[in-house]
Amino acid sequence: MLEEAAAELFLEQTYAGTTIGDIARRAGVSRNTFFNYFSAKSDLLWVDVDAGLAVLPATLADCDRAAPVTESVRQALLRVAAGFGPGRVPWALTQYELMATSSELEASALARFLVQVGLVHEYVGARPGQAALADLAGRAFSTAVVAAAVAAAREWAAAGVGRGELAGYVDVAISPVCAGFHPVLDRVQDS
Amino acid sequence: MLEEAAAELFLEQTYAGTTIGDIARRAGVSRNTFFNYFSAKSDLLWVDVDAGLAVLPATLADCDRAAPVTESVRQALLRVAAGFGPGRVPWALTQYELMATSSELEASALARFLVQVGLVHEYVGARPGQAALADLAGRAFSTAVVAAAVAAAREWAAAGVGRGELAGYVDVAISPVCAGFHPVLDRVQDS
Repeated sequence: MLEEAAAELFLEQTYAGTTIGDIARRAGVSRNTFFNYFSAKSDLLWVDVDAGLAVLPATLADCDRAAPVTESVRQALLRVAAGFGPGRVPWALTQYELMATSSELEASALARFLVQVGLVHEYVGARPGQAALADLAGRAFSTAVVAAAVAAAREWAAAGVGRGELAGYVDVAISPVCAGFHPVLDRVQDS
Repeated sequence: MLEEAAAELFLEQTYAGTTIGDIARRAGVSRNTFFNYFSAKSDLLWVDVDAGLAVLPATLADCDRAAPVTESVRQALLRVAAGFGPGRVPWALTQYELMATSSELEASALARFLVQVGLVHEYVGARPGQAALADLAGRAFSTAVVAAAVAAAREWAAAGVGRGELAGYVDVAISPVCAGFHPVLDRVQDS
């Protein structure tokens, strides 16, 4: 309801020109009610993405711990991506120009990016036998693999109606990162 | 001069509590003069980083075009990193907490990140025999390799006075990314 009200207003008067008060009024609720659901106006752009990403911690926790850590992370990211089909392109990825949002959208994008990097890094560091890897290589892997997945999501969103499934794009983007870090991060387990 | 005035003021009254007018006044210049040198307050945090990154386009252009593209990018990023020794840690990386800047700092960080990704991606796409790679894999590589370099810079800045040279950190972080993408991006040249 708040999402629909926001969508209408952003299209009518741009993202920047729309206040939280405008959105609450259009939806017929109070500002306090808005803040029961969202912590910032930019959250509205990310509803779909945030819902999709929310499963990452549980997905990582479910991974086979006998597999190399790079492979576990790859599988977890592909499972998260599998939630996004060709008809479910999040608003933050497609409404970029239209809503004149770029600078605030970028800041809210980075905040989300850093959360996912932190989750992957925590997983890499917490794996049995991986404690010593909560270090530079683990941080570089976590950052690079999530960055590659984000690059894939942007290409996918830009690909138009024939885009197919997000997971295929993410696979092409992240598999080389995982392959490159496998000999570095999985040395402990292989020995 | 403007940098020194800003440094004093940010420490005295925080980044958020300091206006461009305050900085110009302390430095004894007009606001117009400020804007001759900087386009935003956040630019002041990035003076050292921006100066270091400014050499990336020329460094990429100078790379040996007979080498694999992933190796050329690796060499170029290491050459840029070589400009940062243990005593030259940019302000944006060290004054994070102190200046209470995080959200604006993150937005200005992302803008710089995307510029560097764009430069690397342009280089990858423009290499002879690489035209078909100005695509998903090229974009994923460019994003991941720059993200890994940024992760390295953060680890380096956090490492304290015994940190040594930035280039060593960047090498550990980006080499696996380059190794992972080598068979994907350099297939055209090898065949």
